[in-house]
Amino acid sequence: MLTNYFNTNNLLDSIITIGGQALILVIAYMIAAPLGRKVVRSIINQMAKRQQLSENRGKTLENLLINVFNYTLLFLFIVTLLGVLGIPIGPLLAGAGIIGLAIGFGAQGLVSDVVTGFFILIEKQLDVDDYVTAGGHDGIVEELGLRTTKLRGFDGTLHYIPNRNIQVVNNHTRGNMRALVDISIGYSENIDEAIKVLQNVCDEFAKNDHRIKDGPNVVGVQSFGSSDIVLRVIAQTEKMEQWGVERDLRKQFKEALDEANIEIPFPHRVIVNK
Amino acid sequence: MLTNYFNTNNLLDSIITIGGQALILVIAYMIAAPLGRKVVRSIINQMAKRQQLSENRGKTLENLLINVFNYTLLFLFIVTLLGVLGIPIGPLLAGAGIIGLAIGFGAQGLVSDVVTGFFILIEKQLDVDDYVTAGGHDGIVEELGLRTTKLRGFDGTLHYIPNRNIQVVNNHTRGNMRALVDISIGYSENIDEAIKVLQNVCDEFAKNDHRIKDGPNVVGVQSFGSSDIVLRVIAQTEKMEQWGVERDLRKQFKEALDEANIEIPFPHRVIVNK
Amino acid sequence: MLTNYFNTNNLLDSIITIGGQALILVIAYMIAAPLGRKVVRSIINQMAKRQQLSENRGKTLENLLINVFNYTLLFLFIVTLLGVLGIPIGPLLAGAGIIGLAIGFGAQGLVSDVVTGFFILIEKQLDVDDYVTAGGHDGIVEELGLRTTKLRGFDGTLHYIPNRNIQVVNNHTRGNMRALVDISIGYSENIDEAIKVLQNVCDEFAKNDHRIKDGPNVVGVQSFGSSDIVLRVIAQTEKMEQWGVERDLRKQFKEALDEANIEIPFPHRVIVNK
Amino acid sequence: MLTNYFNTNNLLDSIITIGGQALILVIAYMIAAPLGRKVVRSIINQMAKRQQLSENRGKTLENLLINVFNYTLLFLFIVTLLGVLGIPIGPLLAGAGIIGLAIGFGAQGLVSDVVTGFFILIEKQLDVDDYVTAGGHDGIVEELGLRTTKLRGFDGTLHYIPNRNIQVVNNHTRGNMRALVDISIGYSENIDEAIKVLQNVCDEFAKNDHRIKDGPNVVGVQSFGSSDIVLRVIAQTEKMEQWGVERDLRKQFKEALDEANIEIPFPHRVIVNK
Amino acid sequence: MLTNYFNTNNLLDSIITIGGQALILVIAYMIAAPLGRKVVRSIINQMAKRQQLSENRGKTLENLLINVFNYTLLFLFIVTLLGVLGIPIGPLLAGAGIIGLAIGFGAQGLVSDVVTGFFILIEKQLDVDDYVTAGGHDGIVEELGLRTTKLRGFDGTLHYIPNRNIQVVNNHTRGNMRALVDISIGYSENIDEAIKVLQNVCDEFAKNDHRIKDGPNVVGVQSFGSSDIVLRVIAQTEKMEQWGVERDLRKQFKEALDEANIEIPFPHRVIVNK
Amino acid sequence: MLTNYFNTNNLLDSIITIGGQALILVIAYMIAAPLGRKVVRSIINQMAKRQQLSENRGKTLENLLINVFNYTLLFLFIVTLLGVLGIPIGPLLAGAGIIGLAIGFGAQGLVSDVVTGFFILIEKQLDVDDYVTAGGHDGIVEELGLRTTKLRGFDGTLHYIPNRNIQVVNNHTRGNMRALVDISIGYSENIDEAIKVLQNVCDEFAKNDHRIKDGPNVVGVQSFGSSDIVLRVIAQTEKMEQWGVERDLRKQFKEALDEANIEIPFPHRVIVNK
Amino acid sequence: MLTNYFNTNNLLDSIITIGGQALILVIAYMIAAPLGRKVVRSIINQMAKRQQLSENRGKTLENLLINVFNYTLLFLFIVTLLGVLGIPIGPLLAGAGIIGLAIGFGAQGLVSDVVTGFFILIEKQLDVDDYVTAGGHDGIVEELGLRTTKLRGFDGTLHYIPNRNIQVVNNHTRGNMRALVDISIGYSENIDEAIKVLQNVCDEFAKNDHRIKDGPNVVGVQSFGSSDIVLRVIAQTEKMEQWGVERDLRKQFKEALDEANIEIPFPHRVIVNK
Repeated sequence: MLTNYFNTNNLLDSIITIGGQALILVIAYMIAAPLGRKVVRSIINQMAKRQQLSENRGKTLENLLINVFNYTLLFLFIVTLLGVLGIPIGPLLAGAGIIGLAIGFGAQGLVSDVVTGFFILIEKQLDVDDYVTAGGHDGIVEELGLRTTKLRGFDGTLHYIPNRNIQVVNNHTRGNMRALVDISIGYSENIDEAIKVLQNVCDEFAKNDHRIKDGPNVVGVQSFGSSDIVLRVIAQTEKMEQWGVERDLRKQFKEALDEANIEIPFPHRVIVNK
Repeated sequence: MLTNYFNTNNLLDSIITIGGQALILVIAYMIAAPLGRKVVRSIINQMAKRQQLSENRGKTLENLLINVFNYTLLFLFIVTLLGVLGIPIGPLLAGAGIIGLAIGFGAQGLVSDVVTGFFILIEKQLDVDDYVTAGGHDGIVEELGLRTTKLRGFDGTLHYIPNRNIQVVNNHTRGNMRALVDISIGYSENIDEAIKVLQNVCDEFAKNDHRIKDGPNVVGVQSFGSSDIVLRVIAQTEKMEQWGVERDLRKQFKEALDEANIEIPFPHRVIVNK
Repeated sequence: MLTNYFNTNNLLDSIITIGGQALILVIAYMIAAPLGRKVVRSIINQMAKRQQLSENRGKTLENLLINVFNYTLLFLFIVTLLGVLGIPIGPLLAGAGIIGLAIGFGAQGLVSDVVTGFFILIEKQLDVDDYVTAGGHDGIVEELGLRTTKLRGFDGTLHYIPNRNIQVVNNHTRGNMRALVDISIGYSENIDEAIKVLQNVCDEFAKNDHRIKDGPNVVGVQSFGSSDIVLRVIAQTEKMEQWGVERDLRKQFKEALDEANIEIPFPHRVIVNK
Repeated sequence: MLTNYFNTNNLLDSIITIGGQALILVIAYMIAAPLGRKVVRSIINQMAKRQQLSENRGKTLENLLINVFNYTLLFLFIVTLLGVLGIPIGPLLAGAGIIGLAIGFGAQGLVSDVVTGFFILIEKQLDVDDYVTAGGHDGIVEELGLRTTKLRGFDGTLHYIPNRNIQVVNNHTRGNMRALVDISIGYSENIDEAIKVLQNVCDEFAKNDHRIKDGPNVVGVQSFGSSDIVLRVIAQTEKMEQWGVERDLRKQFKEALDEANIEIPFPHRVIVNK
Repeated sequence: MLTNYFNTNNLLDSIITIGGQALILVIAYMIAAPLGRKVVRSIINQMAKRQQLSENRGKTLENLLINVFNYTLLFLFIVTLLGVLGIPIGPLLAGAGIIGLAIGFGAQGLVSDVVTGFFILIEKQLDVDDYVTAGGHDGIVEELGLRTTKLRGFDGTLHYIPNRNIQVVNNHTRGNMRALVDISIGYSENIDEAIKVLQNVCDEFAKNDHRIKDGPNVVGVQSFGSSDIVLRVIAQTEKMEQWGVERDLRKQFKEALDEANIEIPFPHRVIVNK
Repeated sequence: MLTNYFNTNNLLDSIITIGGQALILVIAYMIAAPLGRKVVRSIINQMAKRQQLSENRGKTLENLLINVFNYTLLFLFIVTLLGVLGIPIGPLLAGAGIIGLAIGFGAQGLVSDVVTGFFILIEKQLDVDDYVTAGGHDGIVEELGLRTTKLRGFDGTLHYIPNRNIQVVNNHTRGNMRALVDISIGYSENIDEAIKVLQNVCDEFAKNDHRIKDGPNVVGVQSFGSSDIVLRVIAQTEKMEQWGVERDLRKQFKEALDEANIEIPFPHRVIVNK
Repeated sequence: MLTNYFNTNNLLDSIITIGGQALILVIAYMIAAPLGRKVVRSIINQMAKRQQLSENRGKTLENLLINVFNYTLLFLFIVTLLGVLGIPIGPLLAGAGIIGLAIGFGAQGLVSDVVTGFFILIEKQLDVDDYVTAGGHDGIVEELGLRTTKLRGFDGTLHYIPNRNIQVVNNHTRGNMRALVDISIGYSENIDEAIKVLQNVCDEFAKNDHRIKDGPNVVGVQSFGSSDIVLRVIAQTEKMEQWGVERDLRKQFKEALDEANIEIPFPHRVIVNK
């Protein structure tokens, strides 16, 4: 194709045409580049405002997107320019394509990490110091990255979780948490009386404990065990305080039932002698 | 290809041809754009009416589709125009294709999220405040998005579920729910009498409780345990009230059986001494 | 390529050729369109007759297929016509291809839903009000759609199952169902006598109960438990009545064995004192 | 490309060339079509003979293959003819390709169903009325199709299994089946004596029961339980009779051991008092 | 492309060129075909010799490969010839490609079956009458095919296993097998004495039983149970005789321990009365 | 295409054009090569500094990337040069593509290993001698490679883990670890007293043991067992010392409870004699 | 394209051009072939030296790679030569591509086997006679192949494992192994005394047994059972001797505890009579 420039008599014409086209391309590029950057920036700014992102995080996302935009545009510009100049970019592209595909297969996970990470950041699904379950592990978020999220497990382990492994995020620090205590009484006890004793403890507890947001309340007979009747108590507590509240409730329930002479039964067995 | 314009003597002809084709394209675009938008809008409106979508949600879907339509048409228009103008869009497209494919692999999940989200909205599988099971978690729907659905679990956890992770939706608030209580009696008890006692409780309960929609009724002997005969009671209740009804029924059954001297047996063991 | 029209002297020739080809295309389209629709219709009609589809469902399928046919033909016609007119549809197609692929990946599930739904309808695997297991859930079919099937679970939950999630359909309402009761007797009992007692109950039951289609019969000693010998009784009942029959049989078996003084044993343990 | 016919002076030449090529194509098609059909038919016939397929099934497979062959050849013929006539089938094919790919993805399962179904039929892995396990379900084969296999489960459920879900077929009606009974005796019993008693039952059973093909025989001490020694008895029975034989053997073993005063032990426990 | 023959004045030249090229092709084909077949044959022969394949199996593989070779070469020859003759095989190939891809997706499993089957045969992983575990099932190999392997399970079931489902082959008949018996003694017994008693049985057994290849030997204290000390005995036996040996050893161990007054303990429990 | 050089009269022109283009290419290459290497190096250096990589590891990564860069650039250069010289690289590329694809499918895992390994190194998720869980195994890291990571399990096994199998890394040596001891007391014991006894042990322990970083503390009543009340003690210890601390705490708790006459209960059972 | 040679007057020019290009190709091939082989060889040699591969294995790998190199180069040479000679290799390649793809899909596993096998060999993850776990099975390596690895299980089974099924290799014979014995003592025993008794056994054992590499040592109280306190003993032994050491330690511990009158407790139960 390129040799056609010379098998016409109008070399000049060729030059003019190509020059003109190249010029148009350069101008188009010079308009598209800053314009595109502006658009990207304003989109991110709007998103950041709506999501109340910290300025820091907004900046990170903006840089990421601006970078992607710049490299993409530059690549397209060079490729098109080469085409206009008559350099056979076909092979170049094909070659790049083969290499790209090879790397792409391997790096697919990387892109997937970054895309997922982007949405985790923009939707604020995670924040540093949140207690979450993600990618099969749970712990306190230590660091949020575009590729990897680091969780500190309660046993001290540091979990490096590639973002693509994060499907569903369970955030345990977005609101009050539930404290739930199941407590058993014997079949021979009076249910109403047991509930009264437990509810008294609950009311006293709610008055004196600032961690309680709602309840605790005895909700009723949860199930019949083989040797015990199970009563359930539910409360709303401040986040991360549910375990402490449950432990304290358990201790007080035990002591109150002891005092009221209500039995927490051991497993029973009826023996038939033959 | 482009240099051919100049190796003919009829530069003018070329210009006319190209100009004419470009003109046709522009006209086609100017007809297709508003027409297409109209069609999209009327389709959405019809759908919204048939599905009784809230105006708010209909608007969201309309905007989404109009956006997709606009960008697609614009892209096709530009690509075709460049082709008509003789600018070698081949490389441009190929370049864009390679980049697009790379991003596409990573962003595949995103498109999948939006497509699934679209159908969840249009088919009204979920509504805010519904109690549902989706993507392996259950809770109250807090927010419905095109990419992510937020569920508030009963323990207070906030679940961020990418829509693609939602395969089957189990909506527990689309109609009455079933309350089911299994209660054990001893092998030495009279089954008919036990059923009569329980049915009496049921009838009394149904009279006094507005949460009951149907029943409760003793349906019969569900199974033989190793030490007990299991009777099953089933009722239809208002949605979300099934647990409360079950708890209240359990308490009343226990009290009625005690009163009628019908045994809820502990595990039995026959001892053979050697 | 397009500019070649003008670098020949025979512009007229070009026009004639193109016009002729376009004409042939239009004629071909005008013949193919109604003909194809006719073929689609007659195929569906034949299928509907052979499968005894309700007219309603046949109409739904016909519309679906006619729509698919129309859009496909129109698309091919336009693309070919543009080709004949010398408009460079290459880029257009490539552009459409990239967009199409991107959407296609995401919408793949949608096509898969519809194809599966089509075969579920045409093979009548499901009918409204059938009790089925599909996609991991079981319930009564409330609605059959090309994209989604709705099941009402026994606990009141409404399951939205995308058709692609339906692999194997287990239809529990296509014929009589089996009622199966396992009942234990002590190791010290006479097996023959126990079978006689149970079979008597069965025969009496079969006489008086219209739900029974075949049996019930004691089939024999199903297994040796650690403390009991397990006898099995099997019956054929009307569909959806198997649970009721099982419950009634259980009650009558218990009463008959009590009357005949045959023991349903508690777990035994032999104690060796040291 | 097409306009080249006219920028030569030899329109006639063009017509002759094209005509000639078209003629060759038509002739090739008219030879290939019946020839191919003949080949397909004879292959199927040979296969059917070797596999002793019923004529009915052979016909089904033949029709399937002839259809596939006809449509494929016709499609290739039309495409090539259009190419020869100079109609730009490139875009047509590309367009068809895009649509085809879209449908193909969704219909992939369908093709997979038919290919698997074809081999299930040709290899006679299943026959109507066989008792088989396939695709995770077991039952009696009610209907064999190219797309779906229908099994009737023992509980009355009708299973619709798309053939692609059938990986391994376990056919339980291709030969005699094994009846296997494990029976426990006490640790204090004499093993030889117990074996003798059981073997006597077996020999008596084999003499009087036409369902027995081989055995039953006591094969020895299968394992030591915590309170019992487990003996194993194995027999070969007619297909589908294994369960009945097992039930009858169990009853007779129990009665024979009782008669011989050999203990089938309850669980033992040694008690150490502190 | 094809019309170019005529827009030159040198029709003759064209014919000569094409004819020459076609001739070269035909000659190349006539050399490549028998040569290739020879190469295939000699490769198979070498393989067969090295693997000591039965002539029968070698023949099967040879035919398979020769067929694949013939069809491939013929296809390439025809396609290239058509290209040389100037018939536009582009569309033909594209059309074939679309059909091929569609079928290919479905038939992918078939190719995978044959390739796996080929290696199972050539590496002699399975032989008819071997006892193997493959594709999740175990049994005696009844038939080896390129597509399907048939196993006869011990319960009489015939398993049809597509070769692609065979990942790892566990062949239980490639050498001696291990017989392993674990036997419990009481905590109050002398371990040394128990081992002596068991080893005596082992030595006697080894002397009199031709099935034993090595051992049996008491290897020592395998574990501490809650009420027993577990001793392990291991032997090497002829293949398929391991179960019989284990059963016989168990019986003899029990009798020897009884004789030596060494206890095989029942589960113990220490009772603390409150 | 290549023959066009000679069907113009201007062979010279061709040569000049090609020569010029080749020259531009060579110059471009000679600029791009060292420049690119410089960029790669500075990026790695910056990364290494920010991540405080050991010089050794930084060098490894630099070499890897420089190699990838060199081969990629060289390949593109050759391909483009061949294109400029008019050698038909289309077939060459296509051929290479087919081979490349075939190998690529198989080697996909390799690329994936290296990409994952790269990020594990650069993010310092693992260090030699760390105690980690990765790829389903846990142990001490013995060697870090770009393709394989070697872990030494606690039982002495050496695990070769291809990096692609490492999804989430759980590093147990990035900070203090938690020691957790659950200890049971009887239902009849005073909880406050038991906590006091245990807390005394904890305080004494913390004073004398340098492995303790925080705690240990009794956090409260963790759960109600069927016969025991479970108290939980938690401490922060130096990494890898958690197991030793737990063992020492357990011993001291047992001794302290014994001394204080607080019961660690055996399982209880209430016996009802019939 | 090929006919262009003749529509110029300069047939000679064409011949010269083509001839020249062909010549360059042949020369390039003759240089590249031996050079490439040399490079492959020296790479393998270096690798072999660094990894201390046996000469035998190095030779196997060298042959494999030389073969791959030869066939690849030859294929590229032929394809390019055909291109230079003007034979339309496009269709040939496309045809080959379709066939290749079809086979490739099926043979994908084969390539994957060989690539994995190559790395297993070069990294010496496995050696004949190693005791390893790979692909879900464990046993002694009997044979290492590029496609299949054969393991001999401890029960005598021969496992044929395609290399692609080998993900993580667990090599149990790369260093000393750990022997671990858990032993229970009663709650009423003195822990210090028990540890002293066990440690004495350990010290004695270590002195007299050459299999011990380190320890054995009592590490402390591993856990509290429901009726026992569990002490853990750990030793380092020669590879494959860990089981024997464990068995011997168990026997000696039992005897030493008996002698010191320290109880290994049976399960305890506290009985409360009602």
